[in-house]
Amino acid sequence: MLDHQAGLDRLFQALADGTRRDMVERLVRGPASVSELAASRSMSLQAVMQHLRVLEACGLVRTEKVGRVRTCALQPQGLRLVEEWTTRQRTAWEGHLDRLGELLAEQPSED
Amino acid sequence: MLDHQAGLDRLFQALADGTRRDMVERLVRGPASVSELAASRSMSLQAVMQHLRVLEACGLVRTEKVGRVRTCALQPQGLRLVEEWTTRQRTAWEGHLDRLGELLAEQPSED
Repeated sequence: MLDHQAGLDRLFQALADGTRRDMVERLVRGPASVSELAASRSMSLQAVMQHLRVLEACGLVRTEKVGRVRTCALQPQGLRLVEEWTTRQRTAWEGHLDRLGELLAEQPSED
Repeated sequence: MLDHQAGLDRLFQALADGTRRDMVERLVRGPASVSELAASRSMSLQAVMQHLRVLEACGLVRTEKVGRVRTCALQPQGLRLVEEWTTRQRTAWEGHLDRLGELLAEQPSED
């Protein structure tokens, strides 16, 4: 449970940065090399690598070096955990609104 | 667009903390006073107020003081933005998998 909480901490933290979200938005469309990620965002390789380390540490991305090219691929499980947590909150909120509606409907009318 | 990005930064940052997620999990079931939030989590009022400030700053929670009681209520729009972003990434990822499947199906069989 603590592990799960710490995992969510790291996932939300990693996504609290526009550049990293932008990299995820690119990688959901398929793998990319580090140089491709850098070129399309006018970023230095070093800056991309720094963000990739954060994305790898929380499990959102896996990178693999074949020859001289490091390829980055999305790991969908991390996104799934974030979506599950968020959807659970929305569902609970809708349940609260439903109960509120029922309570209001039960109020005796003042006619 | 930049405002939207900065808003998402703050939302993900606010949710990158187990105590704050826990407070959101409580508030999706209905409003609570600061003392209720503190008591059920064995936290000091000061610690709760500190987390509430972060949740208020990103628009996830609104607090209102009536008499001596400060009541906290969830603002669902923030959760919605996080869910929308995450669901959009999952959908794009599924689209990528579909295209990959089609490409594989188009490969000439080696029989």
